[in-house]
This record gives sequence, structure tokens and C-alpha cells, in this order.
Amino acid sequence: MEKENYVIGLDYGTDSVRALIVDASDGSEVASHVHHYRRWSEGKYCDAAANRFRQHPLDYIEGLEVSVKEALGNAPAGAAGKVRAISIDTTGSTPVAVDKDGVALAMREEFAENPNAMFVLWKDHTAIGEAEEINALAKSWGGVDYMKYSGGVYSSEWFWAKVLHVLRDDAAVRAAAYSWVEHCDWLPGLLTGNTDPLKMKRGRCSAGHKAMWHEEFGGLPSEDFLARLDPMLAGLRGRLYTHTSTADVPVGTLTAEWASRLGLTGGVVVGGGAFDAHMGAVGGQIKPGSLIRVMGTSTCDMLVAPLEEVGDKLIRGICGQVDGSIVPGMLGMEAGQSAFGDLYAWYAKVLMWPLRNMLSESGVVDSCTGSRLADEVAGKLLPHLDENAGKLGIGDTGIVALDWINGRRTPDADQSLKCAIAGMNMGSDAVGIYRALVEATAFGSKKIIDRFVEEGVRIDEVIALGGVAKKSRFVMQTVANVMGLAIKVVESEQACALGAAMFAAVVAGIYKDIPEAQDAMGSGFCAEYVPDMRNHARYAGLYAKYSELGSHMENSVRKGR
Amino acid sequence: MEKENYVIGLDYGTDSVRALIVDASDGSEVASHVHHYRRWSEGKYCDAAANRFRQHPLDYIEGLEVSVKEALGNAPAGAAGKVRAISIDTTGSTPVAVDKDGVALAMREEFAENPNAMFVLWKDHTAIGEAEEINALAKSWGGVDYMKYSGGVYSSEWFWAKVLHVLRDDAAVRAAAYSWVEHCDWLPGLLTGNTDPLKMKRGRCSAGHKAMWHEEFGGLPSEDFLARLDPMLAGLRGRLYTHTSTADVPVGTLTAEWASRLGLTGGVVVGGGAFDAHMGAVGGQIKPGSLIRVMGTSTCDMLVAPLEEVGDKLIRGICGQVDGSIVPGMLGMEAGQSAFGDLYAWYAKVLMWPLRNMLSESGVVDSCTGSRLADEVAGKLLPHLDENAGKLGIGDTGIVALDWINGRRTPDADQSLKCAIAGMNMGSDAVGIYRALVEATAFGSKKIIDRFVEEGVRIDEVIALGGVAKKSRFVMQTVANVMGLAIKVVESEQACALGAAMFAAVVAGIYKDIPEAQDAMGSGFCAEYVPDMRNHARYAGLYAKYSELGSHMENSVRKGR
Repeated sequence: MEKENYVIGLDYGTDSVRALIVDASDGSEVASHVHHYRRWSEGKYCDAAANRFRQHPLDYIEGLEVSVKEALGNAPAGAAGKVRAISIDTTGSTPVAVDKDGVALAMREEFAENPNAMFVLWKDHTAIGEAEEINALAKSWGGVDYMKYSGGVYSSEWFWAKVLHVLRDDAAVRAAAYSWVEHCDWLPGLLTGNTDPLKMKRGRCSAGHKAMWHEEFGGLPSEDFLARLDPMLAGLRGRLYTHTSTADVPVGTLTAEWASRLGLTGGVVVGGGAFDAHMGAVGGQIKPGSLIRVMGTSTCDMLVAPLEEVGDKLIRGICGQVDGSIVPGMLGMEAGQSAFGDLYAWYAKVLMWPLRNMLSESGVVDSCTGSRLADEVAGKLLPHLDENAGKLGIGDTGIVALDWINGRRTPDADQSLKCAIAGMNMGSDAVGIYRALVEATAFGSKKIIDRFVEEGVRIDEVIALGGVAKKSRFVMQTVANVMGLAIKVVESEQACALGAAMFAAVVAGIYKDIPEAQDAMGSGFCAEYVPDMRNHARYAGLYAKYSELGSHMENSVRKGR
Repeated sequence: MEKENYVIGLDYGTDSVRALIVDASDGSEVASHVHHYRRWSEGKYCDAAANRFRQHPLDYIEGLEVSVKEALGNAPAGAAGKVRAISIDTTGSTPVAVDKDGVALAMREEFAENPNAMFVLWKDHTAIGEAEEINALAKSWGGVDYMKYSGGVYSSEWFWAKVLHVLRDDAAVRAAAYSWVEHCDWLPGLLTGNTDPLKMKRGRCSAGHKAMWHEEFGGLPSEDFLARLDPMLAGLRGRLYTHTSTADVPVGTLTAEWASRLGLTGGVVVGGGAFDAHMGAVGGQIKPGSLIRVMGTSTCDMLVAPLEEVGDKLIRGICGQVDGSIVPGMLGMEAGQSAFGDLYAWYAKVLMWPLRNMLSESGVVDSCTGSRLADEVAGKLLPHLDENAGKLGIGDTGIVALDWINGRRTPDADQSLKCAIAGMNMGSDAVGIYRALVEATAFGSKKIIDRFVEEGVRIDEVIALGGVAKKSRFVMQTVANVMGLAIKVVESEQACALGAAMFAAVVAGIYKDIPEAQDAMGSGFCAEYVPDMRNHARYAGLYAKYSELGSHMENSVRKGR
């Protein structure tokens, strides 16, 4: 194997984009750079209380240029000339309205400040009503069951709900939106000059998991179905796509303009895009029987199985099962929790309220000192809570919580569900509540495992990657104890970008397929959490209380509709 | 009316005792002093997580001496010689085990540090199991329904549950406990030298509301009943009492020793004791149709009605209806919330965790600066939350909470119930949660009003007194809006002590009865909260959600038994 083959994995997360330059021969990480989206970090175009989260295409484009050029700058001299291919993963479903030329509407001057013309981020839940309509129609639809491969429930986090919500919400965007493109498809199209919405390459991963695309349906849901959902959607199907590609298929090569903007040479191959969790699963060495959990603000729980093993079996209540969405040639299954680290971050923000709002506002100290003190405490808060919560025993506090602060992705997607905390008395403190929230995320994890197992899917081991997997021993041990399964933690700090680099190595022709790239480029594991099975048994009672509280809150939400 | 008649009202609250010297001719407050219990303020003998709250008799005795002497010191020269009578109110049910001489066991050297030999404070909930046993036995008891005048449910906050719990828990105390005395009876006995448990005066208020005493039963529940509850109780009834007195009856005069210790002259009459809320209701000018709410850490909600108006009618699920427990000659009815200000205080403590535990522990600032900053913020936290929560609209946050952080006193006492907070999403913040907690206390208030009205008891107006009534305009307006009733706030800062002073004026013979003393000595009102009836209507939906969440949590607790 030639030592001079470099590939770039680009990983677009919720807050930042990471460019990782990898030596394809052994997976060694040559250089990287992380760029935080500027507008996003200023809180622009978002309204957390309304669950509206939008991202501007310029955040993505600036991030692309800065991260690639800085990573090249950090690499040994001459690295740019050795780059053979780029592959990209992004969050999703994160679609944007585009015009006839495939230009994201917010890139046009008249829409530059309109959130509806921007990318609708995965965690935007403005389309809860639309998701309900899609569910109602799909369930009563006499013909094809379009939700059969999406776990039987359509989520407000997904493509059609978001498209319909924005079209209804904004007449100007409606008039200008010729088609819609997922973030993971839009960037490869942009880099290779293939932006015509009717001809550009569309990824199997986003289409199959989020847009009800399936070969059996002849592609997307029928024109009849979409027009019945809302006449506003009539004709849109013809301006989207019927064919999709897996991410081991090249989209093209860098345009001369983009080669120059990124500081690369001509001929660099650009691979098809896919979601971060899916490429992260590849980077984390997914294989049949290994559940890969990408554990960050939320979790994505990924499994692959040989197509012949699953056959016609449909898995209830997961986010989808799609041929080739993770590893081409195998069935990819996706599940996940809408909030994981987000739940802790939310709680930390609640606890920080006096420090953030009162030290300076109330004149206790000057505003400069106040915000410095607050920042210092905020940076240490979660580790400090971890340390104290770890000293409590199971069930000591009597508190039980639900992890649905962002709704529930799986099992059985329902984004209208909310967080709850119950069982406090006068002796309950901030640490006890935190422990209950950590246990809630662990119980949410177990619900997913339970569902896969109930549905007959094999799980031999759990592999974790993402920020939380590396940061909190307390959280990881709690999850292992609650699940009763060992968890291995992936060594690489940038498994999603590494997975993208593996795809890049395949589109560059360096390896014949993903399993071969995984064998050569995998990073291995840095830790393993072995469950304490006595504690696992002790959690049975609390888990039952979690289930019971959850059922009540679900029934209550349903009654309220 | 002679100008030279002074009376002293002594008000023993949860954290402190207040001595108030009043000119009986017009109710003007001559001088006062507040003393905080020393051992209690150090957290001694308590375990908040286990809901164990005990108070040492020396805290009460020291408080008596200091508060009376300091109040006299604050009064014009010669005041001591003008004092005609002292009356005392205390928290309750707050019983203590005594020996044959009526000495509280913790006053004996061998029990000086034993929490079981101390007063079991009203909010001690260690006897939840015993309360359940009492409920079960009373419900299945073929003969008399001993709970008929206590609202049909016996609480763990009450006399028999506490007595039984301590006797079971502590063999040494069991061997030494000859009888049991309520705090409000123990002090008048001590001051007048009438401590023989078999002869001392026992108050109608504590006996009727907390110990199932009723003339119809011939006093306390029968020997059969008590021995069946636990053979350990056999014989105790004969060492308690059959006769009780209302608080307008003198207990005796100060012993020479106590006259000297308090700096008073001989011949000062000591009145019968009663609970703080009951004497506070008198101080707040209770009369038929006026619901008096003592709003502090918890609430006590008091009503009186002419005996002939209620007749045989039994009010379901309140803390009791007792002839003469508030105003002698009228039926006294008591209800209340186990936590009111306590719920806000609990939440403030949770929010203060980072400031209390991290500023200095984590080395951000030195420990002296850290605790100074924390104290400054803590002092302003609730007013700051009030200000921000008041800017939110009804239902804006989607959060709904239960106020049962201390269990539920009424309607339908159940101290095993807990607090819950539901409906949070990523946009929910510390202010939104606080507003939900305030609304929860208001909904808890409305549940009490609803119950009285359902049971046919007349309520024309609401009168509030206590710390919260004076401190938070936001809380008071929210309660008025939720209840749909105007609330008048009593002018006096020390209505309980003023009520005690009115009783003192009656036992001294200055007035013939309580209504006459109220007319002469009442303080009037300083504020009125008029409900916004549009907002009252808007609360209907949230109130329904509160009821629904409450039903679920109640069922869940019941299933867990």
C-alpha cells in the first residue's frame, strides 16, 4: 500500500464542522481542524422555546473553507497534493429549499435573513402537527404502507414534515422553492458542480430513513399520496428524485473553483454524502451484531445485518431500515434518543440561572467578574455533578425522570412528548435530580435495546462513540449497568470524520469496499464499561417506574390532542 | 378601658419564637422580640432526606426566656408590672414523651441527645407507615368511626402516628415514656407548675384536630382500639386525658420561679395553649364565612361556623372540625397545604447548588468570597424569580407541577405523596419551572376551597397572613387569580402572636370573649388582591392538567404500597 494516499473526512455536526485528513494506508490521523458555525453560535435564526432551529448555508460554506484549509495548514508540507478524495457526513434530516439551479434560497439576497429559506436542522420540531397529519394519512392509506420501513411512525424531525411545515408557513419561500435538498446531498453537489435538483446525486441514507423512499414504492411516496396530504405538495415529487445512491458511489470531482478555494489540486474525487451517525458507525467499526451508539447531544443507535438475514422482517418503531444506508450491501437500521447530553446540558443551564442572571444584574459583582465566574463554574458543573451523583445508591432518592426533553425518537417516534421529573421531597437536592436525569437517559437507551431484541434483531455487543462516551465515566457506567451489556468506547476522537474518510478511501478506489477500509483504517477501542449485574438487577424497580410515568405522560399528551 | 393592661402573646413557629407585648385596650403592639432556636438552626437532630424533624425542649425554654426578657427590654419602662396575662401558640401536632412528673424526656441527662426524646415537629413524616395502619384499622373498625371529625383520613403529621412510631423505634424511650404532651400544652403547664400528665390542662385544639378526641367518643379512642393498633399502646390512654379545655380558659398563674426568670411580677395569668394557625386565625379576625390562610412554609386554612349551622354535617378530607378549637363556642375547621413557601425555598436551594458548592470548592474564588456571594444571591433569588415569572403568560411554558414536596395535608391527607414537574422541553428555563411551582401552590390552594364549597361550607372572603402573604405580590396575585377570589392581607406582621394576646386578654378577664377582643384589638388589613377573572378562566386548562398529573402520581404511589 502506497503511503502517499490521503483522504479527507468532513463531519458536519450540530455546532461545528470538522475536517480530518487521514492516511488511507493505516487510518492514521494526519491533521484536523474544527470550525464553529458563526451565525449559529450567535443564536441566530433559532427560537429554542418554539423548538425552531435553522442553520444558514453560509455557516456551512465558511466552515468548509476554513476547516479544510486550516487542516491542510496543520498537516506536513505537501499534504494538499496527496489528497485523493473527500467524503462528507452531516446531521439530518436537515433539508433546505432550493431554486431551479439548486441554490439554497437563503443564498439569494431576498431570503438571506429568512429562517424558512435555511436548513431546517435535525432537531427542529416545528413540524409536529405536520408529522401527525402524515401519520394519520399513511395509516389510513389503502394502498402502499409507506411507513413500513420507517418503523411505522413518521417523525417531525423528518423530511416531509419539515417541507410541508415550511411551505405552509411561508408564501414567499413556497413560491421560490423549486425543490428540496438534504444537507448531505447539497454539499457534494456544490463541490462537484452537480446542483441541478433533477439530476444531482441523492443519498440512499437520507432518502430511505427520512423521506419514505424505497425501491418497492418506485421511489418516494406517490403523487396521489403527497397531493392528498396537501395540494401544496402536488408536483413536487417530480422535482425531487426516484433514484438514490449509497455513499460508496462517487458524485464527481472537485470543480476548479472549489479546488482553488480549498487549496487542493484538481481530480479530487467527492463521494456521496450520508448522515453523521451512519458514517460514524462505519468509523466505529460497525458489523453485524454490534450496536453502535453515537452518544452526544442526542444518540443515534445503529445496526447492520446481512440482507438475507432480516429478509422481509419489519422492525417496529425504529427510525428506519434501509438497504445500504450504513454499509453498502447490508441492511442499515437506525434508532436513537432525541436527547442525551442535551438533557444534562439543559439541566446545567437551569442550575446556572442564578449565576448567569444575578451575579451582575443584581449588582453583587461587576458584570465582567460575574460572567467570568459563571463561565468557570459552568465548565466544571457537569463533572462536579457526576462526582456527587456517583456516590448515591440506586433508588436512594426516590426520584424518577423522563428523558424526553427533545421528544422521543425511538422506540415509536413522538416529538410532542416532554421531560418530567417526579418523586421529590424536601430532602431532594440538585445532585439527586441530576442522577435521576442520567438514569432517565440510560432507561431510554434500554428501551431501544429491548425493542430490537423483542423484534428478533441480534445484539452481541455495544460500541460507543461521541462526546459523552469519552467525557463521563459515571454516565457510561450507569448506561452499562441499566442495559446489562458491556460498552466499548472507540479510540478515535473523530469517528464520524474517520468514517467519512473510509468512504473517501473507497470512492478513491483505494479499497474495494467498506469492510476492507474498516479493517485497514479502524482506530480500535480505548475503554470498556463492564456492567455490574447486581446493580442491573437493582434497576428493575426504577425502570418499571420510568415506564409507568412514561405511559401516563403519553396518554396525557394523546388526550390533549 | 384602662390603658395600663398589657398582655403577652408568645408564638412558637417552626424556626423561632416571638414574644409580643400588646396593649389590650386597642391592640397596639408595644414591643416584641424574635429568638431563633439555636440547636435547630444548626440542623441538629434532623435528617431532611428521611423527613425527620425534631426539636429540643431547651430550644423552647431558652427561646421563652430570651424573647420575653428582650421584648420587655424593648418596651417602655415599667412595662413588666403591667403584664396581666400570657397566652401561647405553637406548631402542632408536635408531641413529646414525658415522664411521670411531666418532664420532657430530652430534659433528662440520659436522653439529652436522643431525637426520639424530643418534640416531634409538625412536619416530621417518619410515621407514614403508622398513619397507614391507623387509617386501615379505623376504616375496618366496627364500632365508632374515630376519624369522622378528622376528615376521614389520619395523617403521619398527627399525634398517634408519631407516638406509635417513636415507641416502636426506641426501646429506651418506650420504657421511660409515661405519657405524651403537645408542645402547646407542655409550656403553659411548665409556666404554672401544672405538669402532672394526669392532671395538667390539655387543649381542645390539639386534642380534637390531631388525637381523634371528641366528646361523642368519651374522649380519646377507646383502649380496645389503641391496643388493637399496637399492644405497645395498651394502658397509655389512661395516662393521657379525657377532658379538654378551650384556650379562653386559664391554666393557672406563673410560678414564682418563672415570674423571676421572665422578669415578671406574680399573679400573671397563663392561658391554655393552641396551635399557631388557630390563634393566628383569631389574630387575623376570623369570623363565619372568612377563610383565614396562614401562608408561610406551609399553609393552614381556617374557618369557623356557628355550631347550629353545621349541625351533624361532616366535612370530607380536611384536618378536622372541632368545637371551640379556634373561637370558643364555634365549630373550628382546619385544612392546609403541607408545603407552600417551603416549595419555593426547596427550589431556590436546588438552584443555589452551583453557588453553594462550586464557587469555593472548585477553587474559583476563596471560600470566604464564595459564601458571601452565595448569601447575597440567595437573599435576592426568589424576588428575582418572581419578577421574571410575572412576565410570562398563563400556559406559555407548558410546564405543570405538583406542590406535594412535603406530602399533602388536605384535601385527603397523604404524606407519602411527592412533588413532580412535567412538560419541560429544551426551551424551558429556571423561571418557567418556578412559575409552574407557584401555580402548583395556587392549584393546591384551590383544591381546598373547592372541597369546602363542595361540602356546603360558606366562604365569603379570603384573609391571608404569614410571611408569603407579605413578601410576594406575584405569588398572592397568582393565588387570587387561580382561586377567583379576592384576598385581604392582615396588617399585623405578627398575627399569631396578636391572636395569642387576644386570648391572654380574655383569660385576664379584660374582655368577655374572643369576638369582643377581636373587635378591640384587631389590626385591620394592609392590602387586597383582586382576581383577574379573565386570567381565572385561562387557568382552567392548567388546573385540569394539575388534577390529572396528581391522580396519576397518587395511583402510582398506591400501586407501590
